[in-house]
Amino acid sequence: MRALILDDQGRLRLDDAPVPKPEPGEALIRVFTAGICNTDLELVKGYMGFRGIPGHEFVGVVEQCGNEHLRGKRVVGEINCVCHQCHYCELEIPHHCTRRSVLGILKRNGAFAEYVTLPEENLHLVPNSMRDDVAVFTEPTAAAFRILEQVSVDQEDRVIVLGDGKLGQLIAQVLWLHTKRLVCIGRHRSKLALLEKLKIAAVLDTEPVEPGADLVVDATGSSHGLGRALELVRPEGTIVLKTTVAQGMTADMSLSVINEVHIVGSRCGPFRPALEALTLGNVEVRPMVSEHFKLEDGVEAFDRARDPEVLKVLIHV
Amino acid sequence: MRALILDDQGRLRLDDAPVPKPEPGEALIRVFTAGICNTDLELVKGYMGFRGIPGHEFVGVVEQCGNEHLRGKRVVGEINCVCHQCHYCELEIPHHCTRRSVLGILKRNGAFAEYVTLPEENLHLVPNSMRDDVAVFTEPTAAAFRILEQVSVDQEDRVIVLGDGKLGQLIAQVLWLHTKRLVCIGRHRSKLALLEKLKIAAVLDTEPVEPGADLVVDATGSSHGLGRALELVRPEGTIVLKTTVAQGMTADMSLSVINEVHIVGSRCGPFRPALEALTLGNVEVRPMVSEHFKLEDGVEAFDRARDPEVLKVLIHV
Repeated sequence: MRALILDDQGRLRLDDAPVPKPEPGEALIRVFTAGICNTDLELVKGYMGFRGIPGHEFVGVVEQCGNEHLRGKRVVGEINCVCHQCHYCELEIPHHCTRRSVLGILKRNGAFAEYVTLPEENLHLVPNSMRDDVAVFTEPTAAAFRILEQVSVDQEDRVIVLGDGKLGQLIAQVLWLHTKRLVCIGRHRSKLALLEKLKIAAVLDTEPVEPGADLVVDATGSSHGLGRALELVRPEGTIVLKTTVAQGMTADMSLSVINEVHIVGSRCGPFRPALEALTLGNVEVRPMVSEHFKLEDGVEAFDRARDPEVLKVLIHV
Repeated sequence: MRALILDDQGRLRLDDAPVPKPEPGEALIRVFTAGICNTDLELVKGYMGFRGIPGHEFVGVVEQCGNEHLRGKRVVGEINCVCHQCHYCELEIPHHCTRRSVLGILKRNGAFAEYVTLPEENLHLVPNSMRDDVAVFTEPTAAAFRILEQVSVDQEDRVIVLGDGKLGQLIAQVLWLHTKRLVCIGRHRSKLALLEKLKIAAVLDTEPVEPGADLVVDATGSSHGLGRALELVRPEGTIVLKTTVAQGMTADMSLSVINEVHIVGSRCGPFRPALEALTLGNVEVRPMVSEHFKLEDGVEAFDRARDPEVLKVLIHV
């Protein structure tokens, strides 16, 4: 099969790769569409030391599988593949399984390929009414919903989302369902305009913003996001960290002690509320699609995705 | 009156200063004993840009005061003096009052002097049975109890306290009341031995420690403490930050995102449980007193307090 491969020299290239063989309990999925995430761009820069086929946002059809209810069905898939036996699986925080593989990120080939395998238990059926270019957003939308599993947000809370990129847009939309006292701070008028169309307040980071927010989410993808968040959050307020960058992230943490700030790291989230929000149209993702590429042009797709003005780039297999 | 003064050149010296005049609602307290805290040493290095009389751990007697129940009584005092009107006072987190002064740390002269003033509402009576060299530990013991207001700790939780200094010792003792699955990691055999006498596990930081703790408290007073805590805490575990250092604190925060760690800054705490623990002997502080000095020898007392082998240095007025 054809696949995008991050090779041993850390270069991304299109090449042939063997069709993966599903292990017991796994399904073989033919990929329709996969999305490029900022994490993919960081992987190419060296984040996680990943080698192999990246890609963890996808929609496809199950071609082989033990479970007849999944066979032939359109699916999206959770990306953490876990052992069910280690200490953290027993603690019921399986996405921190010490033996986990993570689709296209850690010890498991991903979805920028014709075929991908995942455990059946990771798969979720996609409603017939949902287009591929919507379903492919399930994984990052779930990452936005993760925040609501970690932090309570109600209509009285004042929220600042730092970052108008792909994940920042989804987080702003998801949290806006819970409070209208929300503003997204970004660097790109065109991206902020998408939020404004949805009536979500959005401002350039050169404009003044009142500090003292109850919750600040750092989705800047920048090593400076945490420092800015510490300036904007109120004493005893909460910062959710979504940024993962290859270069590492540093901040002067004295402010967090003096102001007794809560900082919470946040990664993957629940697919069910994400699929529901996408089904109901509570989260609008199609305006976020900047460009479409074929898998054969995948390297070029990554180049486009690096453009700061571009939002989601989709790869169609 | 005689006082230790951090002067405009940032030098600590003994000098004469006017006896402070209590504002309405304030008490004038004659200081018996005051303790040198790590924050005091950081103030001398430039932390908070403080100028004036430092000192925020004290016990003394009320000499002037509107409240007859306080007059002539031995007291300790909470250090945050608040406005009761600002947003954060209304939110009932008054120790984050935007107009606050903080005894010997921010906009208010402290206790390394013959007299000090504080609002009456900040004062707590000291039980007659409690010695001055115990009562003077109320403020730092309260800072240890603050952790229990922020984080739940039960007997199943595995806790690591980083730092065998003054605050680390108190934190280890306080948290040990809630879980015996606790170890304090430090750098000084003599300090760790004090904890071992209390049957609290204590190891040198050169020894191996099993990571994966539910709670790690950074009381190292070092800019490297947070990074070490991130290595030792389990996924979705909690780090409490107690370190405040003049130079600022930095850490690679990527681990906090991947492991979805909660980081909580922690400052001043409740005096009542602290006084109770000191009264009952649940927290033992007298073995922590390394040296005694007279106020006249206060500059020398600060020099001694900087010695890494020394724990609490008390100044008697």
